[in-house]
Amino acid sequence: MMSDITMAYNTYGILNEDKSNAILVCHALTGDQFAASQQPVTGKEGWWTIMIGPGKVLDTDRYFIVCSNVLGGCMGTTGPKDINPETGKAFGLDFPIITIGDMVRAQSLLQDYLEIPDWFCVIGGSMGGMQVLEWANSYSERCFSAIPIATAAKHSAQNIAFHEVGRQAVMADPNWMGGKYLEHDVKPRAGLAVARMAAHVTYLSESALHRKFGRNLQDREALTFGFDADFQVESYLRYQGINFVDRFDPNSYLYITRAMDYFDIARDHGGSLAKAFEGSQTRFCVVSFSSDWLFPTTESKEVVKALNAAAANVSFVEIETDKGHDAFLLDTPEMLETIGGFLNSTAKSRGLL
Amino acid sequence: MMSDITMAYNTYGILNEDKSNAILVCHALTGDQFAASQQPVTGKEGWWTIMIGPGKVLDTDRYFIVCSNVLGGCMGTTGPKDINPETGKAFGLDFPIITIGDMVRAQSLLQDYLEIPDWFCVIGGSMGGMQVLEWANSYSERCFSAIPIATAAKHSAQNIAFHEVGRQAVMADPNWMGGKYLEHDVKPRAGLAVARMAAHVTYLSESALHRKFGRNLQDREALTFGFDADFQVESYLRYQGINFVDRFDPNSYLYITRAMDYFDIARDHGGSLAKAFEGSQTRFCVVSFSSDWLFPTTESKEVVKALNAAAANVSFVEIETDKGHDAFLLDTPEMLETIGGFLNSTAKSRGLL
Repeated sequence: MMSDITMAYNTYGILNEDKSNAILVCHALTGDQFAASQQPVTGKEGWWTIMIGPGKVLDTDRYFIVCSNVLGGCMGTTGPKDINPETGKAFGLDFPIITIGDMVRAQSLLQDYLEIPDWFCVIGGSMGGMQVLEWANSYSERCFSAIPIATAAKHSAQNIAFHEVGRQAVMADPNWMGGKYLEHDVKPRAGLAVARMAAHVTYLSESALHRKFGRNLQDREALTFGFDADFQVESYLRYQGINFVDRFDPNSYLYITRAMDYFDIARDHGGSLAKAFEGSQTRFCVVSFSSDWLFPTTESKEVVKALNAAAANVSFVEIETDKGHDAFLLDTPEMLETIGGFLNSTAKSRGLL
Repeated sequence: MMSDITMAYNTYGILNEDKSNAILVCHALTGDQFAASQQPVTGKEGWWTIMIGPGKVLDTDRYFIVCSNVLGGCMGTTGPKDINPETGKAFGLDFPIITIGDMVRAQSLLQDYLEIPDWFCVIGGSMGGMQVLEWANSYSERCFSAIPIATAAKHSAQNIAFHEVGRQAVMADPNWMGGKYLEHDVKPRAGLAVARMAAHVTYLSESALHRKFGRNLQDREALTFGFDADFQVESYLRYQGINFVDRFDPNSYLYITRAMDYFDIARDHGGSLAKAFEGSQTRFCVVSFSSDWLFPTTESKEVVKALNAAAANVSFVEIETDKGHDAFLLDTPEMLETIGGFLNSTAKSRGLL
């Protein structure tokens, strides 16, 4: 048990007098609270500027957007790199194992703190979508609507397998030092980069990789026949790996991937996902992408089936795109239209429009 | 240029007087010449006993089966762990980069040595299938028939990406020591195990993983909420990784994955795959598996299209299975029937039956 936790969050837009226009944005595995503002480490713009801003789908002229760093994260919310008050050293592996439920519970405390009785909407993709489903499961009365994108109500065997590969890559790096690298002023950079590279391949579809890179060569006319990055796709992956290491804590990577692996809403309801949503008044809009093989449409359909069985209010769209799992982070026009339309009609029901 | 190479090979069955019943079996990335005999390091039976033996599809009562370790391998054929005569030390990264073409050229020297004018059949899955296609490309007149299984005429961007992750995992291990681990009497075990784990996930289909493991727990009643292998799929992957390290040379893994990445038959024919097969008298049987996402059916169809355009003799079967890429190594009845039928009718054309 942790007695005190810090939650780091950003807000965009203004909370109305009724406190009825607040939207919680839940970030994915390697995301953070800088959804629509400059990331302080990389200096890059927020990861969801495609969605959040004046006149955009998550319209900051109309809504009050909240995005918090997840519990176990490394951008300000309490996580394994923070100091354990009992030892005066970084938690490392003494940090308790966390679940998606714990992340959402922490967000609900933030909701209390902000004195928001219920979110107008909770929205997120991938692990963000898991949090959305967990909100609907545990705090349905506190979210008016919910938009889980490219996600699932349980983590599949294949996804657990990919996560395990990533964790083993981190732990195989001698600089991980049993999780105590901060005490030794080192970082398992190589292992974390490999983990990120492996994960990154799964975020793209084969057709997106083919379209983006094919077998094109990197800054050269002909094959060099060596172990340099001859192919653009290799160079791209190496960049993704190296770039990630500067902004992310390796132990956070372990804890957050593990939280995803343990996610299985039906398990807590005797195996019935429908039971999790029984009596829910939340309005759902479930979104999947045709080329997403990490969280395929079949997983979203399981959620929709359960919501239907629970007689919940649900709309579902599978968006045709070749961009793979990453589509939720990209300018995917049909996604923007779908979510924009749903939010508009839901805002009318809520009396916001 | 290498002046001398050693080829390690096994044979099963007896070469007939005409020397017309020889079949070359080409192994995959981590395979070896022990296709139907005990592997000396692991003590396990051969990797293709499902196919090779008396009365089996590759019938040792009827055919003379040859299986050689690929150039760059680590089970006896010359590879990076062998001594470089110029330095008296293991080659390591001084070993020349090899291609699938080099592997096949080495096999053709073995064919000369065995005084076999032409193979009755060249057969193999995955990288073995690449060698089959390369035989048809470079030595069509020396193979009467060819059975490329679960393969492609070029390595895709996604597959290059997965290989790059594996190589980076090996190279990230400090025990790799710039490829000179043998001189220091160490081995990048952790890195190679991670590479193998990552690759292994790609060899199985999501449905096979789900059927085999689902979210089942490993030898325990309830989740432990920690980083131990709670799930069976994690335990299985760790076993695959650790087990592999004992029998494989890390630098061989680098060289052989690289050979696959460079594979692109059409490139050497002005971008036209059909040109590679023009005038070929070889009889082809192309086999793919419906759930193989590493070498999907679309890749086999590209080969078939090119063979048709070259007016070659080709039959093609996509086998319905949920076993994924690994199906060619497993008891897949429809595969055995398909290949058995093709070999019987081809043996008749050849006057062997």
